[in-house]
Amino acid sequence: MTAAASLTAVLCLGVLTSCGTAAGQGDDDYTGPPVNGGTLRVAFDADITCADGQQAGNNTALNVSRQIADSLTDQDPETGEIVPWLAESWDVSDDSTTFTFHLRYGVTFTDGTPFTAQSVKDNLEGIVDLGAKSSLGSTYLAAHFPGVNNTTVWADPDSGSHIEFAGFEHFARTAERGLFDFLFLAEGLRLREHKGQVFDQDVVGRPETATVLSALAAVTTHIGVTGTFNSTFNEPYDLARTLATLDRVSGGRAAWNVVTSHNAFTGANFRRSGYLDGADRYRRAADFVSLARTLWESHRGSDGSFDWHSDFFDVHGTFPVPETPQISPVIFQAGDSDEGRDFAARHAEVIFSAHTEAEDRKAFRTDIDQRLAAVGRRPDSLKIYPGISDILGDTEAEAQERYREVRHAQVHGPGAIAFLEQVWGRDLSGYDPDGPLPDVGPDLDNADITRGRVRHEKDYGAVARRWRALAEEKNLSIRELVTEVSGRGGTLIGTPAQVAAKFDDLTQQRAADGFIVVPHITPGGLDEIVDRVVPELQDRGVYRTSYAGSTTLRDNLDLPAYNHSTSQEVSA
Amino acid sequence: MTAAASLTAVLCLGVLTSCGTAAGQGDDDYTGPPVNGGTLRVAFDADITCADGQQAGNNTALNVSRQIADSLTDQDPETGEIVPWLAESWDVSDDSTTFTFHLRYGVTFTDGTPFTAQSVKDNLEGIVDLGAKSSLGSTYLAAHFPGVNNTTVWADPDSGSHIEFAGFEHFARTAERGLFDFLFLAEGLRLREHKGQVFDQDVVGRPETATVLSALAAVTTHIGVTGTFNSTFNEPYDLARTLATLDRVSGGRAAWNVVTSHNAFTGANFRRSGYLDGADRYRRAADFVSLARTLWESHRGSDGSFDWHSDFFDVHGTFPVPETPQISPVIFQAGDSDEGRDFAARHAEVIFSAHTEAEDRKAFRTDIDQRLAAVGRRPDSLKIYPGISDILGDTEAEAQERYREVRHAQVHGPGAIAFLEQVWGRDLSGYDPDGPLPDVGPDLDNADITRGRVRHEKDYGAVARRWRALAEEKNLSIRELVTEVSGRGGTLIGTPAQVAAKFDDLTQQRAADGFIVVPHITPGGLDEIVDRVVPELQDRGVYRTSYAGSTTLRDNLDLPAYNHSTSQEVSA
Ligand SMILES: Cc1cc2nc3c(=O)[nH]c(=O)nc-3n(C[C@H](O)[C@H](O)[C@H](O)COP(=O)(O)O)c2cc1C
Ligand SMILES: Cc1cc2nc3c(=O)[nH]c(=O)nc-3n(C[C@H](O)[C@H](O)[C@H](O)COP(=O)(O)O)c2cc1C
Repeated sequence: MTAAASLTAVLCLGVLTSCGTAAGQGDDDYTGPPVNGGTLRVAFDADITCADGQQAGNNTALNVSRQIADSLTDQDPETGEIVPWLAESWDVSDDSTTFTFHLRYGVTFTDGTPFTAQSVKDNLEGIVDLGAKSSLGSTYLAAHFPGVNNTTVWADPDSGSHIEFAGFEHFARTAERGLFDFLFLAEGLRLREHKGQVFDQDVVGRPETATVLSALAAVTTHIGVTGTFNSTFNEPYDLARTLATLDRVSGGRAAWNVVTSHNAFTGANFRRSGYLDGADRYRRAADFVSLARTLWESHRGSDGSFDWHSDFFDVHGTFPVPETPQISPVIFQAGDSDEGRDFAARHAEVIFSAHTEAEDRKAFRTDIDQRLAAVGRRPDSLKIYPGISDILGDTEAEAQERYREVRHAQVHGPGAIAFLEQVWGRDLSGYDPDGPLPDVGPDLDNADITRGRVRHEKDYGAVARRWRALAEEKNLSIRELVTEVSGRGGTLIGTPAQVAAKFDDLTQQRAADGFIVVPHITPGGLDEIVDRVVPELQDRGVYRTSYAGSTTLRDNLDLPAYNHSTSQEVSA
Repeated sequence: MTAAASLTAVLCLGVLTSCGTAAGQGDDDYTGPPVNGGTLRVAFDADITCADGQQAGNNTALNVSRQIADSLTDQDPETGEIVPWLAESWDVSDDSTTFTFHLRYGVTFTDGTPFTAQSVKDNLEGIVDLGAKSSLGSTYLAAHFPGVNNTTVWADPDSGSHIEFAGFEHFARTAERGLFDFLFLAEGLRLREHKGQVFDQDVVGRPETATVLSALAAVTTHIGVTGTFNSTFNEPYDLARTLATLDRVSGGRAAWNVVTSHNAFTGANFRRSGYLDGADRYRRAADFVSLARTLWESHRGSDGSFDWHSDFFDVHGTFPVPETPQISPVIFQAGDSDEGRDFAARHAEVIFSAHTEAEDRKAFRTDIDQRLAAVGRRPDSLKIYPGISDILGDTEAEAQERYREVRHAQVHGPGAIAFLEQVWGRDLSGYDPDGPLPDVGPDLDNADITRGRVRHEKDYGAVARRWRALAEEKNLSIRELVTEVSGRGGTLIGTPAQVAAKFDDLTQQRAADGFIVVPHITPGGLDEIVDRVVPELQDRGVYRTSYAGSTTLRDNLDLPAYNHSTSQEVSA
């Protein structure tokens, strides 16, 4: 405990609130007014395993170690603002890569040794030296099996069907060989249509997610299985039952990525009529998740009976699946609106984020941390996993050359025109992909020319103006422009050692807690990263060398065990 | 073709109707009035593989061989009645085990040999000699993993959890080792309640069926995976997508047992309000299955788009799962009402039947054959698989002794009282299970004292009167009575060779096309039958020795390939 300083322990109210602890004065049943002095009893939901500040990865350990060791900064439990503690102030360089802390004078350790800049340096380097044992400094990887996408290079001989189970199985086994945290399956409830037809440059089919994940769980042993399921078009009892079964079949490796698409285009597949008002999408999602958790907990000391009456659901009965290894599957969230972020801060444990540039990622982390603080949750109780792609070469030049080839294959002529049509809302098939941008502007009334697609951009007029300016500035053809704007930002390009170093850097900077690798070739595209990059990360000591000790997905993710009172507190 | 007789080929209208063939006169486009003579062209949906009457197991082969070989009897396509052909008349013995056919005189084979009783004997014995190659004379087995049940002997060391995946996996691997046709999972959408509480003598939980089956499909290679799913509380798009995915994951081994429970007790789990009127349960089921088949066929030469507007569903869109190996999973039906049987005759390929006594089974087969004829389907297009249990011993006496032990363990005191309460509709906990029946009669207004249970009996007053008479006649205690009336009728008791002989007999008598074995111990109860009875059946030459040649469940079941026009014709 090298950094333990002799300051009086600061009582961290945020921690108490978020754990739903019982406080009394000496007497457990004390109900009188607050008084000074006496004994404060605090209940934790789990054993305090390792309280070393360099290794502590869960709330229980942190709650204890924060009583006996100080940090450079603290966080105001009311506002989420980062406030001074051992550091009186700090400066951040313009590129956000250098942080300079001005330490408080006169602080000593309990044995009287003075607290200096060297103490801080030793502490931080100790984390790196600990390598994979330090959950604070490790790199985590997960794998995304793309369904609908514009990244697959179909011409590559390692590209195969996105429908046959054999492809999914190869992908899952490879990810598990690479000791990944989880597999991720997206969901599209209706095949995309473009100009009124199924979009044939796309994947033309998609099997049902839970059914595929359950089969994958049966042929793997440690990797998590994360499925995307919609909270608008599903029913809580059905989905909760399926997810609980998946958690059982997999021995505690299930996760649910909560998404809220609510449009009538998708709904027409399912329902007679009556689609959800967009404004209610996250209200329903929150109610849905809270009800699902109630169902998952319904066998804790009880017989599974439940009773739920809300604006969205009016059900009662008994839940048929007994308590599962994780109790609640891990909750993911994807969706970047304000309401989406608030929902994540209240209910989720992992965010699948679309932020790909380093700056963006850090700003997003800060934003999420503030929202977490506002509901009394700690930053490390919600992990952020952005999607990421990589291109390897034996030399950096070879990797760059391969990247150009891949981008060329990804953006073919008809694809470039279709991509532009999505924003322009017009038929542009008369234009030459190798010629300049269309002279006409976008038809904003026809913004749904492509249907069933997740729209991350809302204002197509602004997008079109930005693109036109860029094309004029750099003198780009349609295809060159699309190549430039459609690339998955932040792609890591280089030798395996270089790519490993970049993964490591991003983690150390806390630009991400882990990465969801989106290969440009499916199912064969993961082998290269597993065979070449993972060993480099292991050599750096920042990547696990076995799943030892992990039995559930929460273990893989270094998340605290599911805690009933926390989830209730936060969803209140 | 030893039985081919020289009678003029009889044109079988039933066959033509059920295949949806196109008929014209010499000219394919002939649309005039019917005339005598000319050419009749008939289209079949599959190749005519083997036309030997002793082996032919599918409609195409039968349709052809019926044009060149005669049978003892024919079936009237209008009424379903069995009418004379080579046999002028026949007598059936009182116990329905001996059929005496009176043959027509003066019939010769094409080579002039006279047709005699010996010809018929040789023909029938030829089927037995052919053994497993003759699909008409083979025994088929399937395995039922009981969820909710009153048969499990929990005290047996081979009894394990009905929830843990390991138990399901052991069961599935054993059934596949025994070359079974399929695994069968029942469904209970809400845990049973008895006197207002979850019924704790029962299994207290049940994982979701599709999720379990998909995981089982991933760890097996040939055995079919049949799941029970309700057509009242599911939505066609959701369930069709899940089942199509299961058919893909399993490589064509999926089946759906369509059930129609519609009560509000179950519905309260799911829906805000509005449960289906019982009278509509099979109307919705038929519409549901027809829509599901439309979805499964939506990629045949098309892009998956669909449009369906009916009393029950109003949906349009695109179906995301491309055509699967079986196109439509095999459709099973369970439910014994008149409407249920009609639904089976129109839409199902297998019936899971509750008829356990030999007489009952034959009467049921006859009833179903008539309903099939009425919609233009052949008897062998719908297989009947009753549930069956067995008890083995090294000697017959040992088996009988074991049977008594098993029944004693199955019917313990509190279980006997609860069983009686289900019919009496009253709290009978004050009565001694080893004493006489209660003096009070049933409270018929409280017939739902047990909720969530499939009620095969509708008139509890009559049941109670029957039981009382039986108890008085044989001087039975409550427990003895329940032991007598709750046993699964038709349990096969004996040495492995005796039990094999009984399976074989039942098949030869056409009392069943196959059997769904319901062990009294789960998951270990199947091993014994696989290790001891299956080899005996193989020795008799009536059981497959490998899955060779079977790739889909339809192959395992000797069903014809799924045929669009037939299904449309029949569901019209
Ligand atoms: C990175 C990312 C991936 C997503 N993947 C899916 C998906 O696979 N299926 C889906 O229906 N929605 C997906 N969405 C979520 C939808 O965008 C979201 O639930 C909905 O549109 C509303 O979100 P918002 O308004 O908060 O952005 C994804 C969102 C993000 C940011
Ligand atoms: C042998 C047998 C097994 C059945 N298994 C189930 C089951 O597992 N789950 C279920 O919901 N219904 C099951 N049922 C079906 C229901 O009885 C049926 O769908 C519904 O009650 C209406 O059927 P009916 O009125 O035609 O008898 C089964 C029926 C039979 C005959």
